[in-house]
Amino acid sequence: MLGKKRLIAVIGGSSASNREIKTAEDVGRELAKRDAILVCGGLGGVMEAACRGATSEGGITIGILPGEKRNDANQYVQIPIVTGIGYARNVAVVKSAQAVIAIGGSYGTLSEIGHAIQSGIPVIGIDTWSLSKNGKINNSITSAENAADAIEKAFDLIVD
Amino acid sequence: MLGKKRLIAVIGGSSASNREIKTAEDVGRELAKRDAILVCGGLGGVMEAACRGATSEGGITIGILPGEKRNDANQYVQIPIVTGIGYARNVAVVKSAQAVIAIGGSYGTLSEIGHAIQSGIPVIGIDTWSLSKNGKINNSITSAENAADAIEKAFDLIVD
Amino acid sequence: MLGKKRLIAVIGGSSASNREIKTAEDVGRELAKRDAILVCGGLGGVMEAACRGATSEGGITIGILPGEKRNDANQYVQIPIVTGIGYARNVAVVKSAQAVIAIGGSYGTLSEIGHAIQSGIPVIGIDTWSLSKNGKINNSITSAENAADAIEKAFDLIVD
Amino acid sequence: MLGKKRLIAVIGGSSASNREIKTAEDVGRELAKRDAILVCGGLGGVMEAACRGATSEGGITIGILPGEKRNDANQYVQIPIVTGIGYARNVAVVKSAQAVIAIGGSYGTLSEIGHAIQSGIPVIGIDTWSLSKNGKINNSITSAENAADAIEKAFDLIVD
Repeated sequence: MLGKKRLIAVIGGSSASNREIKTAEDVGRELAKRDAILVCGGLGGVMEAACRGATSEGGITIGILPGEKRNDANQYVQIPIVTGIGYARNVAVVKSAQAVIAIGGSYGTLSEIGHAIQSGIPVIGIDTWSLSKNGKINNSITSAENAADAIEKAFDLIVD
Repeated sequence: MLGKKRLIAVIGGSSASNREIKTAEDVGRELAKRDAILVCGGLGGVMEAACRGATSEGGITIGILPGEKRNDANQYVQIPIVTGIGYARNVAVVKSAQAVIAIGGSYGTLSEIGHAIQSGIPVIGIDTWSLSKNGKINNSITSAENAADAIEKAFDLIVD
Repeated sequence: MLGKKRLIAVIGGSSASNREIKTAEDVGRELAKRDAILVCGGLGGVMEAACRGATSEGGITIGILPGEKRNDANQYVQIPIVTGIGYARNVAVVKSAQAVIAIGGSYGTLSEIGHAIQSGIPVIGIDTWSLSKNGKINNSITSAENAADAIEKAFDLIVD
Repeated sequence: MLGKKRLIAVIGGSSASNREIKTAEDVGRELAKRDAILVCGGLGGVMEAACRGATSEGGITIGILPGEKRNDANQYVQIPIVTGIGYARNVAVVKSAQAVIAIGGSYGTLSEIGHAIQSGIPVIGIDTWSLSKNGKINNSITSAENAADAIEKAFDLIVD
């Protein structure tokens, strides 16, 4: 393995619907097929499903953990990064990526979306937050219909 | 000064409209009158205006700075906290507060809103982000019309 | 209260000997008399003793906490800064100060000493770590005999 | 690649002596041979030399960067983790590892040694800091003569 690898973040809730889980797994699988490394927050739900998908295709998975223990990582994380900085680790999850795919998610995901857009990193969203400000719709999150669409858009928008 | 003081965060953009500046200054002034300490990100725009308002009424102002230098703080910050952790400091701004007042703001403010709600800290918004998810409006941000209304709602919702 | 205040950090263990507790309390008292704000990690032992000393003289005390709850702060902290970033908050404790006084302390204190010296912030030590590298003594920590001596040296070395 | 990988941190200065560079490269090479992933701060000097050694043997290298840009990483880092949290990232470098090898280094390295020992992670040192407290030598850093010795001791002391 030589040269810097492409990293794509998958963000979303540690509890997730069946549909979100399925989407996350598909996204993870596709990232691996395209030789991108999956970076995520390392915990359950969407994160775990994405890692499961990626490893099923031989991909590499990184989990940037909020806590103090590498064993907090889901079983499909191969490279646990133990930060001990709590949810401030959300910043590192998105900044490490060349594009971010948000699937569902709650307020932690919202904070990650904010950090990503602020840092100029493209965010593709599936069934996730929509933003508006002062009554005007904000289109900074690129909406995708499904995993295949999200992957297509992520690779188009990638910031190297 | 004995006992733990009440801290209220004011968040918003480092560039801001005249209307936002005016609102922030009013909010800062009112916080000081009510003996709450103002905590903010310490930089310009909404943060500076809020600090100016607070100090004009003899209030105490804290700026939690992203960078390495206390002199990055606006001139109305009395207590600069130098974190050196960049925008991960957004987490500390909101977690230190018992309520958060968001005035306008951009993606950094959005990340702070996410971190605050995730942490169970009430967010009152004036001319700021509105959220929806999967087509459903999300009401986690309590909307306020103006500075007086925001202050009223913040003190009602406070989490001690 | 106008203008930026001088902040001096007191660092040391959350468990401490009677002698360290006494020294920390004296240091806190003297900082308050000299109108410096005390910044510390906000927890027990040396931190609590320093805050107790400072408040007994009407001083202002700031505790930059590692955890998620303002009530983790000792009872003499008036302004709890809640970071949620764990021991990475050590960086903010020292960077916020114009000088650092280390009293006893263990490995967390050692990390703070490293961060402070790296940032060009003077460290005055009482009964604390001594450093050497490759067999050569390193004098970056200014040694002090007692609280009065430490205060004298801290104010001499202060970086504004 | 299945299952969590072993991560070993190599820490040391971004400027380094020829001897330190040579040692770091040897350590990196040996880590790769033993199928451990190298984690480091991602910059120059000891970090770059260790990554060069590891990649020369087909190893995987992770650089946990303080800044905002993946291109800050040295050319032998394959997986740059972009934290944006400055030197607070030192905490994540050591906490992610099951053992830490310190080669030379300055005050940043000292802070990492403090964080590692505080977290119960073994530190093996070559030509690096020695610690004493109140006149008593502290042996928390396991001293090694050279790269081979350090590797041997690191794998003996590893915390899984």
